[in-house]
Amino acid sequence: MKHLSIIKIGGNIIDSDEKLAQFLNLFQKIQGNKILVHGGGKVATHIGGKLGIESKYVDGRRITDAETIDLVTMVYAGLINKKVVAQLQSFGCNAMGVTGADGNLIPANKRPVKGGIDYGFVGDVNSAAMPSGNWKELLNNSFVPVVAPITHDGLGNLLNTNADTIAQEVAKALATDYEVSLIYCFEKKGVLLDVEDETSVITTMTFSDFEGLRADGRIFAGMIPKLDNAFGAVKSGVNKVIIGLAEELPLLLEGNSGTTIVYE
Amino acid sequence: MKHLSIIKIGGNIIDSDEKLAQFLNLFQKIQGNKILVHGGGKVATHIGGKLGIESKYVDGRRITDAETIDLVTMVYAGLINKKVVAQLQSFGCNAMGVTGADGNLIPANKRPVKGGIDYGFVGDVNSAAMPSGNWKELLNNSFVPVVAPITHDGLGNLLNTNADTIAQEVAKALATDYEVSLIYCFEKKGVLLDVEDETSVITTMTFSDFEGLRADGRIFAGMIPKLDNAFGAVKSGVNKVIIGLAEELPLLLEGNSGTTIVYE
Repeated sequence: MKHLSIIKIGGNIIDSDEKLAQFLNLFQKIQGNKILVHGGGKVATHIGGKLGIESKYVDGRRITDAETIDLVTMVYAGLINKKVVAQLQSFGCNAMGVTGADGNLIPANKRPVKGGIDYGFVGDVNSAAMPSGNWKELLNNSFVPVVAPITHDGLGNLLNTNADTIAQEVAKALATDYEVSLIYCFEKKGVLLDVEDETSVITTMTFSDFEGLRADGRIFAGMIPKLDNAFGAVKSGVNKVIIGLAEELPLLLEGNSGTTIVYE
Repeated sequence: MKHLSIIKIGGNIIDSDEKLAQFLNLFQKIQGNKILVHGGGKVATHIGGKLGIESKYVDGRRITDAETIDLVTMVYAGLINKKVVAQLQSFGCNAMGVTGADGNLIPANKRPVKGGIDYGFVGDVNSAAMPSGNWKELLNNSFVPVVAPITHDGLGNLLNTNADTIAQEVAKALATDYEVSLIYCFEKKGVLLDVEDETSVITTMTFSDFEGLRADGRIFAGMIPKLDNAFGAVKSGVNKVIIGLAEELPLLLEGNSGTTIVYE
């Protein structure tokens, strides 16, 4: 079975031209089939502020109204995605920037109103409808998909979807055809046992470890959905799932850094 | 030889949600391989105004500075391109939105300083380097490319390129592999002999007709570069080049409306 590397980067890399350039230089060197999934970063908030589009929250949950989906489509699928693609092309890496609407690559459903909260144009990925054939056509033709975190509902609406979730869903959809390594890059060397101690990286984490650490309150806030995505992937047959530092991408791919997620 | 329809639409369609929806419904019905090239429209100027980015001109020529290329990348490649893709997907048309950076589809060179004018991030298409293989891979896999008027220089820079020129260059690059019909849609029923008389459509125009009408001052302003692009295409082996009204797309494709450009 062919190998496929799926790498997800977030705002800490996107927001720094220097870090992004360094990361893309590491990414372009990966041999074989690969996919890059990127998040948003602060630039959307910055441009939104100038356009008079404020971030909206209801009960602490972000709401994507009509002007916000336009904003994130411009910034994620336009500005960030195409800058990444142009830089990868300068290395001779045949990047092809996509959203989930392009080639219907990531079909999603507009999140239903829950508990009286209308999240607006937020998409929950329709896993069962993921067209792995379209993905394979791109990969077979040696294109390197660069994925912006925008999906669509098949009814003409673009939807805002979490980039960690997108990375998980793409990995799952391709796990029957490829031996997939899914690497979540973030600002730490791995999942930390003690958030104050950068050296306390957990090298291997099982689902029962995760449940225990969550119960103890050692894993909290944004790490919970990130790990939910990581465990979702291993449960669905993704070969390797590793969380770590973007700067250590080659080591992460070799399994010599970061936290390896194991379903046991 | 397989047939390929390449359709270019401009601001008059992009700027109207209703006209755009009507046009896309006609476009999605075209049988066989097809490519849509879209221009910009007023939305970039509108959003640029809100962001404090003014259109800049030197000696009447538009200049694309660093903030303007970011603006048009956001609006053309992000907002407009993805809205078009999502709408086409809602018809079951497997649209794939691209710029010239994606898949290196349209390599270009940053326009050199001419007569002391630095046009900034403006791209002149590098016709000789157009990778027809990458285009064919997309078409062979039944994707419908939707092209935003942004190119790249292979050095990591995105560049602003006229959409009429992009349509011409793509048509030329594919003319040896496909029987190409290139349709330029604009706000008139065709090229008019008398710009004041909507019924004065020239049904067939040769290059000597064009030269004569231009010398007489009957063809002027924006029609000159548009016709230069149209004649550039027929001279390079593009099978059919027709200029007319977006609303009459099916008639244009049949050659029963608009102005047919003939190289004689």
